[in-house]
Amino acid sequence: MMKKVFIAMLFLFPTSLSSIHADNQKPKNVIFMVMDGTNSDVVTLARWYKGSPLSLDDILVGGVQTYSLRSGITDSAAAATAMAVGKKTNEDMIGMIPFLDKNNGFVARPTVNILEAAKIMGLSTGLISTSPIQHATPAAFSAHSTSRNDYDDIAEQQVHQGINVVLGGGKIALLPKNPDQNQLPQQPMGIGSALPQYRKDGENLIQTIKKKGYHYIETKEQLKNISGTKVWGSFAKEDIAYEIDREQLAPKQPSLAEMTKSAIELLSKQKKGFFLFVEGSKIDWAAHKNDPIGMISEVLSFDEAVKEALSFAKNDKNTLLIAVTDHGNSGLTMGNGDTRQSYYKTPVQNFINPLKKAKYSLAGAMSQLNTDHTNIKQVAKSYGLDPLSQQEFTRLKKAKDLEEEMVSQLAKRAHLGFTTRGHTGEDVFLYAYGPSKPVGLINNTEIPKIIAKFLKIPSFNRLNHSLFINANEYYKNKGYETKIDLTAKENPIFIAKKGETTITYPANKNIKVFNENVVELKGITIFNGSNFWISLD
Amino acid sequence: MMKKVFIAMLFLFPTSLSSIHADNQKPKNVIFMVMDGTNSDVVTLARWYKGSPLSLDDILVGGVQTYSLRSGITDSAAAATAMAVGKKTNEDMIGMIPFLDKNNGFVARPTVNILEAAKIMGLSTGLISTSPIQHATPAAFSAHSTSRNDYDDIAEQQVHQGINVVLGGGKIALLPKNPDQNQLPQQPMGIGSALPQYRKDGENLIQTIKKKGYHYIETKEQLKNISGTKVWGSFAKEDIAYEIDREQLAPKQPSLAEMTKSAIELLSKQKKGFFLFVEGSKIDWAAHKNDPIGMISEVLSFDEAVKEALSFAKNDKNTLLIAVTDHGNSGLTMGNGDTRQSYYKTPVQNFINPLKKAKYSLAGAMSQLNTDHTNIKQVAKSYGLDPLSQQEFTRLKKAKDLEEEMVSQLAKRAHLGFTTRGHTGEDVFLYAYGPSKPVGLINNTEIPKIIAKFLKIPSFNRLNHSLFINANEYYKNKGYETKIDLTAKENPIFIAKKGETTITYPANKNIKVFNENVVELKGITIFNGSNFWISLD
Repeated sequence: MMKKVFIAMLFLFPTSLSSIHADNQKPKNVIFMVMDGTNSDVVTLARWYKGSPLSLDDILVGGVQTYSLRSGITDSAAAATAMAVGKKTNEDMIGMIPFLDKNNGFVARPTVNILEAAKIMGLSTGLISTSPIQHATPAAFSAHSTSRNDYDDIAEQQVHQGINVVLGGGKIALLPKNPDQNQLPQQPMGIGSALPQYRKDGENLIQTIKKKGYHYIETKEQLKNISGTKVWGSFAKEDIAYEIDREQLAPKQPSLAEMTKSAIELLSKQKKGFFLFVEGSKIDWAAHKNDPIGMISEVLSFDEAVKEALSFAKNDKNTLLIAVTDHGNSGLTMGNGDTRQSYYKTPVQNFINPLKKAKYSLAGAMSQLNTDHTNIKQVAKSYGLDPLSQQEFTRLKKAKDLEEEMVSQLAKRAHLGFTTRGHTGEDVFLYAYGPSKPVGLINNTEIPKIIAKFLKIPSFNRLNHSLFINANEYYKNKGYETKIDLTAKENPIFIAKKGETTITYPANKNIKVFNENVVELKGITIFNGSNFWISLD
Repeated sequence: MMKKVFIAMLFLFPTSLSSIHADNQKPKNVIFMVMDGTNSDVVTLARWYKGSPLSLDDILVGGVQTYSLRSGITDSAAAATAMAVGKKTNEDMIGMIPFLDKNNGFVARPTVNILEAAKIMGLSTGLISTSPIQHATPAAFSAHSTSRNDYDDIAEQQVHQGINVVLGGGKIALLPKNPDQNQLPQQPMGIGSALPQYRKDGENLIQTIKKKGYHYIETKEQLKNISGTKVWGSFAKEDIAYEIDREQLAPKQPSLAEMTKSAIELLSKQKKGFFLFVEGSKIDWAAHKNDPIGMISEVLSFDEAVKEALSFAKNDKNTLLIAVTDHGNSGLTMGNGDTRQSYYKTPVQNFINPLKKAKYSLAGAMSQLNTDHTNIKQVAKSYGLDPLSQQEFTRLKKAKDLEEEMVSQLAKRAHLGFTTRGHTGEDVFLYAYGPSKPVGLINNTEIPKIIAKFLKIPSFNRLNHSLFINANEYYKNKGYETKIDLTAKENPIFIAKKGETTITYPANKNIKVFNENVVELKGITIFNGSNFWISLD
């Protein structure tokens, strides 16, 4: 009975899609921007640090509830999935929602995200982050995996997703390991995320990217001269440097604003409109370290990107811009235990001047530390800890965790408090501009629905019926014998056979092989550990 | 030259006022509500505790910047003054703004507040708080003093302010001390506020209140039967009990929602509209103690009052409702050091269930502690600390500060973090409903201007020129000899003499004595320590 309804809906689908297309003559654009792990206090502090209003200040419209399916405090994967697909899910899930499978108990299935829906509608798409582009938040807008740490799978899906512009870090996950690539990444990552590694499947996805017709680039200079309809920029092995460190420590990398501007320029040449995802990823990373310099650096870097997007949206008049954070992190406050009796007579300068002394983020400063720590004073100075009292210097030298000691000394100087090195559960600010912008308090799951409504995609989750079909059910129903081939551990394959016909679906790609003929599919094939989920041609 | 302009403006004034009246036929109402010292996290936590959406959730519209004139973190006095008079000021100031006086250097002068402006426009007015009604926030909407701790002066000004409905705590500041009233208040107060005391000037202001025609009441039952156009309710010597404690510990006191509802019912009978100020005062007090039970109790109590106000506003359709917090406090977060690695798998119940065990707020529980502390276990239990491990029990018994130990144990159980026992500096949420409601990010100083615009009071600060005139300048200019009589320390008097004419102005009252004839004034006479500020008849 269920199956009949299911198949009936498949037949209905093409009709409804084409009617949508006819209805959507005027190109509409959506720019969705996330500043990862940013509580209200960080934005206030960044504004004082900058000394003038933020672009975000112009477009504050409400608030967002951020909790996940099973926790009062979300991780970035569950939050991004909520904002990408419109459903609450559990931690670690990338575009996957738990459901009760009659054979396998509770498992997760892929659910269409708003970028995929926009793409199906004929819009151009873009994906930008300062983290590895495979990191949880951009991943949830471009891939489906039961684990945010499956960088290999996520990277492969992104490469086959047909996104027009992909700009960010994460080159490691595109390359096979070779004997010259033994060093492990040094950069601190967000909690919950594994360190990226070279590909275990030995594939070189940069070659694949080029074969797929992308203009592949690796530097800020190259970004200035992009053209065509497909550009892939991989500007760092792992993450792009904190903005405050970038010019000194990674001058070939572009800023988030530069990536955003270039992507908008390219995407806005397309006739059918575009969906662009942009993440300022590393506010969260800095927050996990309780590093206010990194946090402020990345809020301001994000705000510069918002400025670019807002400028385009204001001019275009048919662009919906939404900016949010996915959750709080660190519980940063202006004010701490020391200001308990003096908060009301603490000039702004007392918070800001100690921060202004820092030349680098914590990560930037630490990258300058030599192995025997003989330059610890210079490193501390570059993080604003100057002059150092003898006591402070001793504490730095003897610190079990030098990073913790450094941020603790800076927080004391700047009168900042922190409650945790993890995420927090409060409602966060919602920013939006343009036609159909949301206002008031919303749940994070409403975001893709608001975007879908603006783009006139009626109940976009219905696209699941053509994008993520249970392969086993589908082919068994047609009289095929099916099996899952796990011989190549990193590259599972679904096989359906009937008579002379053999159809195979490699996981994480957008193709099927029909009796040795490669056929391109509408979407990516997903393997959830027990089932394959496939799309129609 | 300046003086001529000044006098010219005085003459102009009546004209412009009457033209405003003519313009304002349809009665408009404003309800301005403050939840004192409430960061975003407390609201989120209170919603989870309640288990369903808040009334506030329906009317979130943006954010507010809260800093004071000289500090990145405001106290309640400077914040309330900003929201009442539209100008930034320093801590402790109640409706007073610092300025450079040519004779006295930097001093403070009174500046008209939005309640006074509404009153001048003929609107009815109301003032409600759960704190002593003389406390900083309600004070800034009804009085002018260089110190928030001048409860005596603030109380006297409020009594002479001509407010239609005054409901709250603070009976002590209305009564002279007598030998039976030796006990000092036990309740914890917000930091920055002195403990209230019986009146040093020996006056009994309750008699004055009654003489002025107020229906004076002291209980919840009496509140149900109020009538007429003037009601004064003083329901507690100091503050009204936390809502969670009220039924058990102070059953004769009304809730904030009950006070709000009664005030609206009475005020809405007036033809010319009304301005009502409502404060949920003690979220801040609980936050200063890091007491999540008190904080949640008072957010929910405030939200019930918002529900009453919103219900009226929705029905009335000509009421502007604005609700804000004046600043963050305590840096409460869902999530703390212990959840650093587990936040993403911490169900909401893990935060809420430990809190649900508490029967009383910290203050309520502590009020049950006997002098020899033999019932410490029962007291701890009434605060949700049950069962107690031997270690926890020992820590409670040995605690230097029992309150700190209790909140610390509860915070650990409920996975809550705090950064301080003082205020914090972040932008806070803005809530509003009705015509001309503000949206987006605003500064707290914009609030009275938004209200004034809605009430069609053009640049309401201009009312200073008739409400707060420098007495010395004014009478010297008219050829009088002037002096300030400080013989009665608590009741300074301004005296102007010319020939047979003697005019005296007692501070903190709305009268002048003209050759022994008492003449009522438009506003309150303010003494700032060096000058008198008087209003016209």
